[in-house]
Amino acid sequence: MADYNALATQFTQFYYQTFDSDRSQLSSLYREESMLSFEGAQLQGTKAIVEKLVSLPFQRVQHRISTLDAQPTGTTGSVIVMVTGELLLDEEQMAQRYSQVFHLVNNNGNYYVLNDLFRLNYG
Amino acid sequence: MADYNALATQFTQFYYQTFDSDRSQLSSLYREESMLSFEGAQLQGTKAIVEKLVSLPFQRVQHRISTLDAQPTGTTGSVIVMVTGELLLDEEQMAQRYSQVFHLVNNNGNYYVLNDLFRLNYG
Repeated sequence: MADYNALATQFTQFYYQTFDSDRSQLSSLYREESMLSFEGAQLQGTKAIVEKLVSLPFQRVQHRISTLDAQPTGTTGSVIVMVTGELLLDEEQMAQRYSQVFHLVNNNGNYYVLNDLFRLNYG
Repeated sequence: MADYNALATQFTQFYYQTFDSDRSQLSSLYREESMLSFEGAQLQGTKAIVEKLVSLPFQRVQHRISTLDAQPTGTTGSVIVMVTGELLLDEEQMAQRYSQVFHLVNNNGNYYVLNDLFRLNYG
Protein backbone atom coordinates (compact mmCIF):
# COMPACT_ATOMS: atom_id res chain seq x y z
CA MET A 1 0.00 0.00 0.00
CA ALA A 2 1.47 3.32 -1.05
CA ASP A 3 1.53 6.25 1.37
CA TYR A 4 -1.27 8.04 -0.45
CA ASN A 5 -3.61 5.12 0.23
CA ALA A 6 -2.79 5.21 3.94
CA LEU A 7 -3.24 8.98 3.99
CA ALA A 8 -6.59 8.74 2.18
CA THR A 9 -7.88 6.06 4.55
CA GLN A 10 -6.72 7.91 7.64
CA PHE A 11 -8.15 11.21 6.43
CA THR A 12 -11.58 9.87 5.49
CA GLN A 13 -11.93 7.95 8.76
CA PHE A 14 -11.12 11.13 10.69
CA TYR A 15 -13.36 13.26 8.48
CA TYR A 16 -16.44 11.05 8.87
CA GLN A 17 -15.88 10.44 12.59
CA THR A 18 -15.76 14.21 13.06
CA PHE A 19 -18.76 14.77 10.78
CA ASP A 20 -20.82 12.17 12.64
CA SER A 21 -19.95 13.39 16.14
CA ASP A 22 -19.78 17.22 15.75
CA ARG A 23 -19.62 18.52 12.23
CA SER A 24 -18.89 22.10 13.32
CA GLN A 25 -15.39 20.80 14.11
CA LEU A 26 -14.66 20.19 10.40
CA SER A 27 -13.52 23.80 10.01
CA SER A 28 -9.92 22.83 10.74
CA LEU A 29 -9.86 20.76 7.53
CA TYR A 30 -10.81 23.58 5.14
CA ARG A 31 -9.18 26.86 4.05
CA GLU A 32 -10.39 30.09 2.49
CA GLU A 33 -9.72 28.71 -1.02
CA SER A 34 -11.57 25.44 -0.34
CA MET A 35 -14.67 24.65 -2.39
CA LEU A 36 -17.66 22.44 -1.66
CA SER A 37 -20.19 21.21 -4.23
CA PHE A 38 -23.05 19.70 -2.25
CA GLU A 39 -25.99 18.33 -4.23
CA GLY A 40 -25.45 21.08 -6.81
CA ALA A 41 -24.91 23.97 -4.37
CA GLN A 42 -21.45 25.59 -4.59
CA LEU A 43 -19.73 27.14 -1.59
CA GLN A 44 -16.26 28.56 -1.02
CA GLY A 45 -14.32 29.24 2.16
CA THR A 46 -14.22 27.57 5.55
CA LYS A 47 -17.08 29.58 7.06
CA ALA A 48 -19.55 29.09 4.21
CA ILE A 49 -18.69 25.37 3.91
CA VAL A 50 -19.05 24.60 7.60
CA GLU A 51 -22.26 26.65 7.87
CA LYS A 52 -23.70 24.58 5.02
CA LEU A 53 -22.70 21.29 6.63
CA VAL A 54 -24.02 22.32 10.06
CA SER A 55 -27.33 23.49 8.54
CA LEU A 56 -28.14 20.13 6.94
CA PRO A 57 -31.55 19.00 8.20
CA PHE A 58 -30.65 16.04 10.38
CA GLN A 59 -29.46 15.64 13.96
CA ARG A 60 -27.78 12.26 13.87
CA VAL A 61 -25.80 10.89 10.96
CA GLN A 62 -23.59 7.90 10.36
CA HIS A 63 -21.31 7.47 7.33
CA ARG A 64 -20.27 3.99 6.21
CA ILE A 65 -17.56 3.72 3.56
CA SER A 66 -18.21 1.10 0.86
CA THR A 67 -15.26 1.81 -1.48
CA LEU A 68 -12.28 4.13 -1.26
CA ASP A 69 -9.87 4.88 -4.11
CA ALA A 70 -6.93 7.27 -3.96
CA GLN A 71 -4.39 8.62 -6.44
CA PRO A 72 -1.56 11.15 -6.16
CA THR A 73 -2.11 14.35 -8.15
CA GLY A 74 1.32 15.13 -9.47
CA THR A 75 4.50 15.26 -7.42
CA THR A 76 3.52 17.59 -4.58
CA GLY A 77 2.06 14.98 -2.21
CA SER A 78 -1.52 16.02 -2.93
CA VAL A 79 -4.08 13.24 -3.24
CA ILE A 80 -7.51 12.71 -4.81
CA VAL A 81 -9.86 10.43 -2.87
CA MET A 82 -13.13 9.02 -4.20
CA VAL A 83 -15.47 7.47 -1.66
CA THR A 84 -18.73 5.64 -2.24
CA GLY A 85 -20.74 4.82 0.83
CA GLU A 86 -23.94 4.89 2.78
CA LEU A 87 -25.52 7.52 5.02
CA LEU A 88 -27.85 6.68 7.86
CA LEU A 89 -29.85 9.72 9.05
CA ASP A 90 -31.70 10.17 12.36
CA GLU A 91 -34.32 7.43 12.84
CA GLU A 92 -34.33 6.26 9.21
CA GLN A 93 -33.96 2.53 8.62
CA MET A 94 -32.91 2.79 4.98
CA ALA A 95 -29.41 4.04 4.24
CA GLN A 96 -28.88 6.48 1.36
CA ARG A 97 -26.00 5.84 -1.02
CA TYR A 98 -23.60 8.67 -1.81
CA SER A 99 -20.39 9.49 -3.68
CA GLN A 100 -17.84 12.00 -2.44
CA VAL A 101 -14.53 13.31 -3.74
CA PHE A 102 -11.82 14.99 -1.66
CA HIS A 103 -8.79 16.71 -3.11
CA LEU A 104 -6.29 16.81 -0.24
CA VAL A 105 -3.53 19.37 -0.69
CA ASN A 106 -0.19 18.98 1.03
CA ASN A 107 0.93 22.17 2.76
CA ASN A 108 4.32 21.31 4.28
CA GLY A 109 3.01 17.99 5.56
CA ASN A 110 -0.31 19.40 6.77
CA TYR A 111 -3.21 18.37 4.56
CA TYR A 112 -6.34 20.37 3.94
CA VAL A 113 -9.38 19.87 1.69
CA LEU A 114 -9.11 22.07 -1.41
CA ASN A 115 -11.98 20.38 -3.29
CA ASP A 116 -14.99 18.54 -1.84
CA LEU A 117 -17.76 17.24 -4.12
CA PHE A 118 -20.77 15.34 -2.75
CA ARG A 119 -23.76 13.69 -4.43
CA LEU A 120 -26.41 11.30 -3.26
CA ASN A 121 -26.84 8.34 -5.63
CA TYR A 122 -30.49 7.81 -6.38
CA GLY A 123 -31.31 4.21 -7.24
CA MET B 1 -21.42 29.47 -15.66
CA ALA B 2 -17.70 29.68 -15.06
CA ASP B 3 -15.28 28.44 -17.71
CA TYR B 4 -14.42 25.34 -15.72
CA ASN B 5 -18.05 24.21 -15.85
CA ALA B 6 -18.13 24.62 -19.63
CA LEU B 7 -14.82 22.81 -19.95
CA ALA B 8 -16.01 19.95 -17.72
CA THR B 9 -19.26 19.56 -19.66
CA GLN B 10 -17.52 19.68 -23.04
CA PHE B 11 -14.84 17.24 -21.93
CA THR B 12 -17.19 14.64 -20.46
CA GLN B 13 -19.49 14.74 -23.48
CA PHE B 14 -16.50 14.16 -25.78
CA TYR B 15 -15.07 11.48 -23.49
CA TYR B 16 -18.26 9.41 -23.30
CA GLN B 17 -19.09 9.84 -27.00
CA THR B 18 -15.61 8.51 -27.80
CA PHE B 19 -15.90 5.73 -25.21
CA ASP B 20 -19.29 4.63 -26.57
CA SER B 21 -18.27 4.67 -30.26
CA ASP B 22 -14.62 3.46 -30.22
CA ARG B 23 -12.93 3.42 -26.83
CA SER B 24 -9.48 2.66 -28.34
CA GLN B 25 -9.52 6.32 -29.43
CA LEU B 26 -9.37 7.53 -25.81
CA SER B 27 -5.57 7.28 -25.86
CA SER B 28 -5.26 10.91 -26.95
CA LEU B 29 -6.75 12.01 -23.60
CA TYR B 30 -4.18 10.28 -21.36
CA ARG B 31 -0.42 10.67 -20.77
CA GLU B 32 2.30 8.48 -19.35
CA GLU B 33 1.72 9.91 -15.85
CA SER B 34 -2.06 9.36 -16.02
CA MET B 35 -3.65 6.95 -13.54
CA LEU B 36 -6.87 4.95 -13.70
CA SER B 37 -8.59 3.29 -10.75
CA PHE B 38 -11.26 1.03 -12.21
CA GLU B 39 -13.33 -1.02 -9.76
CA GLY B 40 -10.29 -1.32 -7.52
CA ALA B 41 -7.72 -2.09 -10.25
CA GLN B 42 -4.95 0.52 -10.59
CA LEU B 43 -3.27 1.28 -13.91
CA GLN B 44 -0.78 3.91 -15.01
CA GLY B 45 0.17 5.19 -18.46
CA THR B 46 -1.78 5.62 -21.69
CA LYS B 47 -1.13 2.10 -23.00
CA ALA B 48 -2.13 0.24 -19.82
CA ILE B 49 -5.21 2.43 -19.32
CA VAL B 50 -6.52 2.07 -22.86
CA GLU B 51 -5.81 -1.67 -22.91
CA LYS B 52 -7.89 -1.98 -19.73
CA LEU B 53 -10.78 0.02 -21.18
CA VAL B 54 -10.72 -1.87 -24.48
CA SER B 55 -10.63 -5.24 -22.67
CA LEU B 56 -13.84 -4.61 -20.71
CA PRO B 57 -16.26 -7.45 -21.44
CA PHE B 58 -18.96 -5.70 -23.46
CA GLN B 59 -19.34 -4.75 -27.09
CA ARG B 60 -21.85 -1.94 -26.93
CA VAL B 61 -22.05 0.64 -24.18
CA GLN B 62 -23.93 3.84 -23.61
CA HIS B 63 -23.15 6.38 -20.86
CA ARG B 64 -25.84 8.73 -19.59
CA ILE B 65 -24.79 11.56 -17.29
CA SER B 66 -27.12 12.16 -14.32
CA THR B 67 -25.11 14.81 -12.44
CA LEU B 68 -21.92 16.69 -13.21
CA ASP B 69 -19.99 18.87 -10.76
CA ALA B 70 -16.75 20.70 -11.47
CA GLN B 71 -14.27 22.74 -9.45
CA PRO B 72 -10.95 24.40 -10.29
CA THR B 73 -7.93 22.87 -8.53
CA GLY B 74 -5.82 25.88 -7.70
CA THR B 75 -4.81 28.59 -10.13
CA THR B 76 -3.36 26.58 -13.03
CA GLY B 77 -6.59 26.01 -14.97
CA SER B 78 -6.84 22.37 -13.91
CA VAL B 79 -10.28 21.05 -13.04
CA ILE B 80 -11.82 18.20 -11.02
CA VAL B 81 -15.01 16.73 -12.46
CA MET B 82 -17.33 14.33 -10.63
CA VAL B 83 -19.93 12.53 -12.71
CA THR B 84 -22.72 10.26 -11.58
CA GLY B 85 -24.58 8.43 -14.30
CA GLU B 86 -25.91 5.27 -15.83
CA LEU B 87 -24.32 2.66 -18.07
CA LEU B 88 -26.28 0.57 -20.51
CA LEU B 89 -24.35 -2.51 -21.69
CA ASP B 90 -25.01 -4.65 -24.77
CA GLU B 91 -28.54 -6.10 -24.67
CA GLU B 92 -29.17 -5.37 -20.99
CA GLN B 93 -32.42 -3.61 -20.13
CA MET B 94 -31.33 -2.44 -16.68
CA ALA B 95 -28.86 0.42 -16.50
CA GLN B 96 -26.03 0.24 -13.95
CA ARG B 97 -25.29 3.35 -11.89
CA TYR B 98 -21.72 4.59 -11.64
CA SER B 99 -19.57 7.41 -10.27
CA GLN B 100 -16.48 8.72 -12.04
CA VAL B 101 -13.92 11.42 -11.27
CA PHE B 102 -11.65 13.12 -13.79
CA HIS B 103 -8.78 15.40 -12.88
CA LEU B 104 -8.15 17.42 -16.04
CA VAL B 105 -4.75 19.07 -16.15
CA ASN B 106 -4.10 22.16 -18.23
CA ASN B 107 -0.95 21.85 -20.33
CA ASN B 108 -0.71 25.17 -22.19
CA GLY B 109 -4.41 25.10 -23.02
CA ASN B 110 -4.44 21.40 -23.92
CA TYR B 111 -6.18 19.30 -21.31
CA TYR B 112 -5.39 15.71 -20.47
CA VAL B 113 -6.67 13.27 -17.82
CA LEU B 114 -4.16 12.96 -14.98
CA ASN B 115 -6.52 11.10 -12.62
CA ASP B 116 -9.48 8.89 -13.52
CA LEU B 117 -11.41 7.00 -10.82
CA PHE B 118 -14.40 4.81 -11.65
CA ARG B 119 -16.80 2.80 -9.47
CA LEU B 120 -20.12 1.12 -10.11
CA ASN B 121 -22.71 2.04 -7.45
CA TYR B 122 -24.41 -1.05 -6.20
CA GLY B 123 -27.92 -0.40 -4.93
